[in-house]
Amino acid sequence: MADKSKITPRAENFARWYLDVIQQAELAESAEVVKGCMVIRPHGYAIWERLQAELDSRFKATGHQNAYFPLLIPMSFIKKEAEHVEGFAPELAVVTIAGGETLEEPYVIRPTSETIIGYFYAKWIKSWRDLPLLINQWANVVRWELRTRMFLRTTEFLWQEGHTAHATQQEAEEEARRMLDVYADVAENIMAMPVIRGIKSQAERFAGATRSFCIEAMMQNGLALQAGTSHELGQNFAKAFEIRFQNKSGELEFAWQTSWGVSTRLLGGLIMSHSDDRGLVLPPKLAPVQAVIIPIYRKDEERSAVLEKVQQLTSELRAAGVAVNADDREGYTPGNKFFHWEQHGVPVIIELGPRDLAVGNVVFRRRDAAEKQTVPAEGLAAVVVRTLDQMQTEMLEAARKRRSDNTVLAGSLEEVRAILESATAEKGGGKFVMAHLKDDKACDARLKEFKASVRCIPLEDHYDGPGKCIITGETVPHRVVIAKSY
Amino acid sequence: MADKSKITPRAENFARWYLDVIQQAELAESAEVVKGCMVIRPHGYAIWERLQAELDSRFKATGHQNAYFPLLIPMSFIKKEAEHVEGFAPELAVVTIAGGETLEEPYVIRPTSETIIGYFYAKWIKSWRDLPLLINQWANVVRWELRTRMFLRTTEFLWQEGHTAHATQQEAEEEARRMLDVYADVAENIMAMPVIRGIKSQAERFAGATRSFCIEAMMQNGLALQAGTSHELGQNFAKAFEIRFQNKSGELEFAWQTSWGVSTRLLGGLIMSHSDDRGLVLPPKLAPVQAVIIPIYRKDEERSAVLEKVQQLTSELRAAGVAVNADDREGYTPGNKFFHWEQHGVPVIIELGPRDLAVGNVVFRRRDAAEKQTVPAEGLAAVVVRTLDQMQTEMLEAARKRRSDNTVLAGSLEEVRAILESATAEKGGGKFVMAHLKDDKACDARLKEFKASVRCIPLEDHYDGPGKCIITGETVPHRVVIAKSY
Repeated sequence: MADKSKITPRAENFARWYLDVIQQAELAESAEVVKGCMVIRPHGYAIWERLQAELDSRFKATGHQNAYFPLLIPMSFIKKEAEHVEGFAPELAVVTIAGGETLEEPYVIRPTSETIIGYFYAKWIKSWRDLPLLINQWANVVRWELRTRMFLRTTEFLWQEGHTAHATQQEAEEEARRMLDVYADVAENIMAMPVIRGIKSQAERFAGATRSFCIEAMMQNGLALQAGTSHELGQNFAKAFEIRFQNKSGELEFAWQTSWGVSTRLLGGLIMSHSDDRGLVLPPKLAPVQAVIIPIYRKDEERSAVLEKVQQLTSELRAAGVAVNADDREGYTPGNKFFHWEQHGVPVIIELGPRDLAVGNVVFRRRDAAEKQTVPAEGLAAVVVRTLDQMQTEMLEAARKRRSDNTVLAGSLEEVRAILESATAEKGGGKFVMAHLKDDKACDARLKEFKASVRCIPLEDHYDGPGKCIITGETVPHRVVIAKSY
Repeated sequence: MADKSKITPRAENFARWYLDVIQQAELAESAEVVKGCMVIRPHGYAIWERLQAELDSRFKATGHQNAYFPLLIPMSFIKKEAEHVEGFAPELAVVTIAGGETLEEPYVIRPTSETIIGYFYAKWIKSWRDLPLLINQWANVVRWELRTRMFLRTTEFLWQEGHTAHATQQEAEEEARRMLDVYADVAENIMAMPVIRGIKSQAERFAGATRSFCIEAMMQNGLALQAGTSHELGQNFAKAFEIRFQNKSGELEFAWQTSWGVSTRLLGGLIMSHSDDRGLVLPPKLAPVQAVIIPIYRKDEERSAVLEKVQQLTSELRAAGVAVNADDREGYTPGNKFFHWEQHGVPVIIELGPRDLAVGNVVFRRRDAAEKQTVPAEGLAAVVVRTLDQMQTEMLEAARKRRSDNTVLAGSLEEVRAILESATAEKGGGKFVMAHLKDDKACDARLKEFKASVRCIPLEDHYDGPGKCIITGETVPHRVVIAKSY
């Protein structure tokens, strides 16, 4: 039972609010004895399992198979791809002692698995008949981060990493785009979190990729969250690990690869997209428990009649496909129970007492509504099913509207700066600023002056066509998203 | 496509046969660049996923929730429980460098999670109301083993570890027994692998437990495999980590704990329980693909008629709940395809050619049958469903019979030795020898002279009652299982 300690209002301190919501909903706990790590508690893990199921079924439907590769990677592997080692070297956790002895060659704990998987792909891929090779792995990875924040950036995190090999660059590009679309589908239609599909600027590209696609979401405070990435790796790792196949003409060619991943970071995005000052708000499609029924009674003679009706309604809801719990625990007040489930983000909370029973009603509260409403007990299952559907749709719409309200166009670097600085001053928040900017590391670097970055070059929703770069004045094809980000 | 290289017959070299089956069924591959590790390939991982689903649903049905705790454990934690550190210290992999710096306190990669979980349980458990706490974790663990063998003993392996805390010793004991029963249920009714439920001798007990329950299986060569364990931890870890709760009388008490786990080792047990000289044999309930239909045609005019019928049968089987694939790949002969699926352990392989089509038949082969049979295409789905059921039952019966045939009673230490040595000499195999033996480390030690051990003190199937210990002559309540083991 969560205690009644208050959740800091978003307007007062967004970062504190975020941690309070996590604590009160019992999603996770900081593991202060293991630097930058966290424990994912049962409620948080149950949401992750729902998300895994949605992703995994889509991976399988698009022809991918799961496999598992070693946690430990020989240090020399990491160094084989020049950009890759440059990107990951500062974040590595290194095993130097094992079985009581100092290792001749240390192992690193995987920060990502392109290298170790590349080694095996080189053994498995001999002919065009072996392609495409479409494998996904659910795994933990470790990146020694300096500043960590629960779910968003932790030293260890859980994720999936897809690794594929193809006969042509075009097939690899199609794969990278296909998986980006899978991510966007899950983000929008399951998490109710609208995302912009885009291409990372060269400065923000994955270490070792030729092109990185991403989905970028806006949190309630206007800051950006990179929610998933899908990379075209070209032949970079194929050359580093000698992944070659005989093509139909009998010639040896290097394979074209992709990799793509989303992680427990998505749960951070979920929390910051929808939750309110009363706690977690979960979209119905991800809620491990979609409805709770709380019986209310004072006298013993009321108890059995109320519990019987609660049991009946629970059965009806379950039969209608709703993940429902009756909270008939003794020793807690109905108010405590309501408060508990509200903080845990249950989409629909239903209360039933003797007076409701007498008139054939229940009291009903949609998690994201301000008020409770009274509805007939007869036909409740249909009302709940419809409400869950509506809530799912309206949560996405509300998040879309918020993003739209907080997206602005800018025509100069000074304007970008002014917009972002005023958003920060106002409430520690941000905006998505759409501006024309050349895809060049020097241009990205200028944004660091005010702690912003190019989140992506959108694949769609460009607002308008070509324009002059706000830094170099050169004509570029369309606006990019500039924002502060997590 | 698996190549046609031969699988070493079991009678010739059982260990080689085991590796050949794994290779030909593409279950896993030794990761020789990461000492003692392996890659679980898609076919192996798909079986693991089926097994996970069966276990996970039973864990949830018995009130457990999943969570996730950190991979890295401070070195000091491991040392807090005296027996625990003694047991695990030699096998630890140690992270000494992270983020480019030498760590003040090294972390170990979890070999098991009693210690890190104990730390958090101490924070979460305050009152009897917080009990029982029933959590399971699906995770990877690392134990630096000297001699490794794919699936059976690898440096890194995947497993689940349940960790529970209770208000009384009796509740903890009931929990440990309950989960032992869950393991036995999955082993026998899903894996078709009969197991003996028993108690580990003191010499074989988990490091830190007060009592270890186990399920022990017999492999085809008569050797024993510990397939799962469930431990009563008493208050050992509660005292080491100060896990205390206020009982109903308001007094502080240490919690009573259990832990229990099964791992990817089960896949090794599965292979060695059922497979034959033609390759993998999978029990239908665990087979990711339960039936394959192979079309046979030579001329183009045959092709469309055969494929149409194959498509129709595939739909009928799928509608009947069979996980079926039609193997209509071009470029492989029907013989190649048959060989491939046979080696991969698919329970039912169906072939359909123009002559079969003309007379309304298909050719049908149950994986564990010697001969193909001809059955009518009409009503095929019902035949397949029935066959899968029968095969599941008969595989368990066959394994039970083999175990029974290879279990013998012995009345003296010399007799135990003679039985085991003759079994080894005959075909490199083993027996289960049932003998009266005192539960004492000195007695267990004598068995090491001939490389055997007490596998367990059975909870049932004792063969007979009390008798004199074959070493000390003292009366003990019943016979124990002595065997060579993996």
